[in-house]
Amino acid sequence: MLTIAGTTFQSHLLLGSGKFHSALQMQQAVIASGTELVTLALKRLQPGQPQDDIYSPLKALGVQLLPNTSGARTAEEAVQAALLAREAVGTNWLKLEIHPEPKYLLPDPRETLKAAEQLCALGFVVLPYCSADPLHCKQLEQAGCAAVMPLAAPIGSNQGLQNRAMLEIIIEQANVPVIIDAGIGAPSDATLALELGASAVLVNTAIASSRDPVRMAQAFRLAVEAGVCSQQAGLGRKQLLADPSSPLQASFAQVLAGLS
Amino acid sequence: MLTIAGTTFQSHLLLGSGKFHSALQMQQAVIASGTELVTLALKRLQPGQPQDDIYSPLKALGVQLLPNTSGARTAEEAVQAALLAREAVGTNWLKLEIHPEPKYLLPDPRETLKAAEQLCALGFVVLPYCSADPLHCKQLEQAGCAAVMPLAAPIGSNQGLQNRAMLEIIIEQANVPVIIDAGIGAPSDATLALELGASAVLVNTAIASSRDPVRMAQAFRLAVEAGVCSQQAGLGRKQLLADPSSPLQASFAQVLAGLS
Amino acid sequence: MLTIAGTTFQSHLLLGSGKFHSALQMQQAVIASGTELVTLALKRLQPGQPQDDIYSPLKALGVQLLPNTSGARTAEEAVQAALLAREAVGTNWLKLEIHPEPKYLLPDPRETLKAAEQLCALGFVVLPYCSADPLHCKQLEQAGCAAVMPLAAPIGSNQGLQNRAMLEIIIEQANVPVIIDAGIGAPSDATLALELGASAVLVNTAIASSRDPVRMAQAFRLAVEAGVCSQQAGLGRKQLLADPSSPLQASFAQVLAGLS
Amino acid sequence: MLTIAGTTFQSHLLLGSGKFHSALQMQQAVIASGTELVTLALKRLQPGQPQDDIYSPLKALGVQLLPNTSGARTAEEAVQAALLAREAVGTNWLKLEIHPEPKYLLPDPRETLKAAEQLCALGFVVLPYCSADPLHCKQLEQAGCAAVMPLAAPIGSNQGLQNRAMLEIIIEQANVPVIIDAGIGAPSDATLALELGASAVLVNTAIASSRDPVRMAQAFRLAVEAGVCSQQAGLGRKQLLADPSSPLQASFAQVLAGLS
Repeated sequence: MLTIAGTTFQSHLLLGSGKFHSALQMQQAVIASGTELVTLALKRLQPGQPQDDIYSPLKALGVQLLPNTSGARTAEEAVQAALLAREAVGTNWLKLEIHPEPKYLLPDPRETLKAAEQLCALGFVVLPYCSADPLHCKQLEQAGCAAVMPLAAPIGSNQGLQNRAMLEIIIEQANVPVIIDAGIGAPSDATLALELGASAVLVNTAIASSRDPVRMAQAFRLAVEAGVCSQQAGLGRKQLLADPSSPLQASFAQVLAGLS
Repeated sequence: MLTIAGTTFQSHLLLGSGKFHSALQMQQAVIASGTELVTLALKRLQPGQPQDDIYSPLKALGVQLLPNTSGARTAEEAVQAALLAREAVGTNWLKLEIHPEPKYLLPDPRETLKAAEQLCALGFVVLPYCSADPLHCKQLEQAGCAAVMPLAAPIGSNQGLQNRAMLEIIIEQANVPVIIDAGIGAPSDATLALELGASAVLVNTAIASSRDPVRMAQAFRLAVEAGVCSQQAGLGRKQLLADPSSPLQASFAQVLAGLS
Repeated sequence: MLTIAGTTFQSHLLLGSGKFHSALQMQQAVIASGTELVTLALKRLQPGQPQDDIYSPLKALGVQLLPNTSGARTAEEAVQAALLAREAVGTNWLKLEIHPEPKYLLPDPRETLKAAEQLCALGFVVLPYCSADPLHCKQLEQAGCAAVMPLAAPIGSNQGLQNRAMLEIIIEQANVPVIIDAGIGAPSDATLALELGASAVLVNTAIASSRDPVRMAQAFRLAVEAGVCSQQAGLGRKQLLADPSSPLQASFAQVLAGLS
Repeated sequence: MLTIAGTTFQSHLLLGSGKFHSALQMQQAVIASGTELVTLALKRLQPGQPQDDIYSPLKALGVQLLPNTSGARTAEEAVQAALLAREAVGTNWLKLEIHPEPKYLLPDPRETLKAAEQLCALGFVVLPYCSADPLHCKQLEQAGCAAVMPLAAPIGSNQGLQNRAMLEIIIEQANVPVIIDAGIGAPSDATLALELGASAVLVNTAIASSRDPVRMAQAFRLAVEAGVCSQQAGLGRKQLLADPSSPLQASFAQVLAGLS
C-alpha cells in the first residue's frame, strides 16, 4: 500500500494523462493500469467546455486527480496556477512542476523549493517533480512536501534509471514517499525502481507512445506489482562467483551409478 | 504462449528446483510462479527412494520435468547420464549442461555442441545451457536443439543481463526459442529479458535464496507476464531530448487566464 | 588549454591534496600528475606552523592554490571561512564546498548558490562543488562562478561517472568550464569525462589511496592527455552493426588465388 | 612490456591497417600510436604490385606484421590462406579470423578452434580473434595459441566493453596474453581494458574513422600508457559511501578560529 498525506492507495503506479490519441484510449489505459492517482496538466484543463477531453473523462473514472503546473517557469507562475486550480479542479493536491528550460524540461531546483514552501504554507498537498539531488529532496521534505518525485531521466526520453546512484541515496534518506518520475521507458524500469525501494513510479510517455497503450498500461501494472512483491520478498545478494543451484560432487560417475 | 518442440506452455518462466529449504517450499514456489516446466538435477535424482525430495514432489504437481546434466564435465558423461535419465524420469526432454570449470560454472562450448549433436540424433528434445555466443547458438540450433539457453551471467551470481549485447544478437538471429538462463537476479531482469525479445527465462537462485521464496516466485510470475505484455504492446523509442507529455505553449499567462 | 577566469593552464587535471601519507609523497604526486591547480582544505591549513604539511609544500611547487571550504555546513560558514582564507593563503580563488550531510558528503544546492552569489560579489573567483543538476549549474554560472564542478559520484567512492546523463547536459549548456569532481575512481573515468566534453577533472582519493600514488598520478596525467587528444580528434559514431575494417568480398577463393 | 611468443613489445597497443584514407595517413597513425605490431588483411595484400598500399608502407616502418585471415568462413579457408601468407609476407605470425556471418562479423568458435589446432601444429604463432567465452579461450590456449583476442563488441561498432563480465573472467584465467579486440570505440575503453587486466588492445575503426586519425592514434597511445601505469599502481576500491579527502571535524568554528 502507498500512503501519501494520509490517503492510502492500493496501486503504486501513477499515470500521466497526456499524449493519448483520444479520451477513450486514455480512460482504457487508466483502467488497465490499475492506477488510482492521475496527473493532468492545468494548461490543458477546460472544465465545463465541450472540448474538455481530460478533466471530465478522468472525473468519470473516480480516480484521485493530481493537477500539475507543467509550463510554469517560475515559482510565482506555479503558485498562481495552483490557486486557480484548487478552485477549478476542486482538490488541494498538486504536482508541482517548474521547468523553464524547453529542451530537456528539467526542474528548476531554486524555484521549485521556493514554490513548495509557499504552497505547503497555503495548505496544498504538494508533490514536487524535482532533480535527483538528495539534499534538495531533503529540503523539499522539510518544506512540508507530501512526497518527492525525482526524475530518472529527461521527461519523455524513455531512458530509464539514468540517475540510479542518486535515486538510491534519496530513497535511503527520505521520510516521505519517493515517486520516480520522468524517463521511465519500459516496465522493467518500473520494476527496478520498486526493487531499489521507491514507493511508486509515475509513467506517461512509455504508455501513451506505445503501439498499444492499453496493453502497455497492463504491462506496467504487472511490472509494478512484481516490484512490490520483490521488495517484500527481498532480493538475493549479487556475487561475482557462480553458486551452483545443486551441490557439485567429486565424481559424476557416482551420479551415473545411482541412476543405473 | 511459448512453444518448444511442439509443446505449448502458457507461462514463459522456467524454474530450477535446487536450493530450496524443503520439498514443500519448492512446491509452493513452483505453484506461485505459474511455471509449467521445471528443471531438476540428475545427480539429485533418487526416484523411489525415501529421501527423494525432488522427483516425487514435482511429479505430484503435474509440471513438465526437464532433467539436467549438471555436474557433467564432458560430452561423454552428459550423453551417458541422459540415456539413464530417460529411463529413470520417463521423459526425453533434457537440459544439457556441461560445465567442467567449478568457479563460474560456465558452459563448455565444444563439449556442449558435441553432446547436443549426439543427443538430438538419439531422439532427445535438447535444451542446452550455453555461452552467449551468437554463432555457437546458431550451431546448436542447426544440430537440432529445441531451444537455446544462453547465460546472462554466471550461475547463481544474480548479476542480471551482463551479456546483453550478445543476447540481443542471439535473439535476433534465432529460429528456436531463446531462454535466458543463469544470472537472472531480480524480477526486473526477467522483465527486461522478455522486453529484449527473449522467449522465456529460467530462474532458480534468485527465488530460492530470497528471504521469502514463495513471494519472490510470485514476483517473477508477474514480472514475466509484464515482459510478455510489453513485447506485445511495443516499447517506445529511447531519445535524448525531453518530450513533453503535454504541449508547451508560448505563454503560461494564457493558462492562468483560462483557469480564472 | 584550460582557461579559468582568464588564467590559462596547460593541464586539464586538478588535484586534491588530502589523504597522502606524507608531504613528500603529495609533492611527488603533484609533480607526476602535471597539475597546475591544487585544492587544499582550509580546515587543514596551518600556515607558518611547524606542523604545516600542506600549504608550504604546495607553495614550494609553484602551483596555483585553490583553498576549499570543506567542512562548511552553511553559506554563512563558507563565506566567513573564505574571507579568512583570502588573507591566510593570499589568493581570491576558492573552491566552494558546502556539504552538511556526513554520509555521502553531497553538496547542498541552496546554500551553495547563496554562498556563490555572495562570494562572487565579494570578488572571489568561485569554483563550486555542486550537484549534477543542469539548472543548478546554470544558476551558479549566472551568479558569476568561474567554473562549475558537478560531482560524478559521492566523494571518495571511486564509482566513476554515475551521473553521466546529467553531466552531458551540463557540458552541453555551460558557458564556463565544467570540471568533473568527486567519484573519479580510475584513469579511464578521467579519459571518459574529457571525451564527453568536460574541460577538466579533479582527482584526489583515486590517486592518494592507490598502492603507488606517484605512479597513479602519472596514469591520470596520461589519461587526461588522452582525453584531450580524443576531444580534438573527434570520436567515431557508435553503431549496432559490425563495420568491417577491410572490405568483404564475394569469394575468399579469389584472395587465395591472389596470394598463390 | 608485452611479451607474445617470446617477442617483447614496449607498446600495449596493436593497430589495424584498414579504412585509412591513404597509405600515408596510415603510416602517420602507426607512428603516432607507438604500436609495434600491425595487422593487415591477407585479402588486401598485393605485395610487389603497384597498387600495394598496405604491405610496403608497413614494411617501411619496421613494425612486426600480423597478417589476418579476415574473410575466411571456414577453418579450411583460413588454413589455406595462412599457408600462402607465410610465403607472401614472410612471417609465421597470424591473426586468425573466421567470421562467416556478415552482419556482425562475429567469430565462429568451432571453426576457429579447429583452425587454431591445425595452425599451431604447422608452426604458426596464432593469435585468434574469438568470442568472449572463457572456456573457449582456455581451449584456444590449450591448442597452443600465443594469445587470445576476445571481442569487446562487434567489429567496428565502437560500442566499447560490452562483454566486460566475461572479459574479466578470461583475464583472470588466462596464461597467455589477453588482447581485447573489436568494438573498442574510444581511448577511455582502451584505458579501462588495461585497468581490468588485459595485456593489450587492438584498435582500428576508432582511429581510422575519426575526424583526425593521427591525433586519435596519439590519444590511444596515451590512453594505453595510462592503463598500463594504472595497472602497476593499483586502483583503489569502489565504495558506496563517501570518504572525505580531509578529516571532518566536530566544529567548523574551530577552523575559522584557527585561520583568524
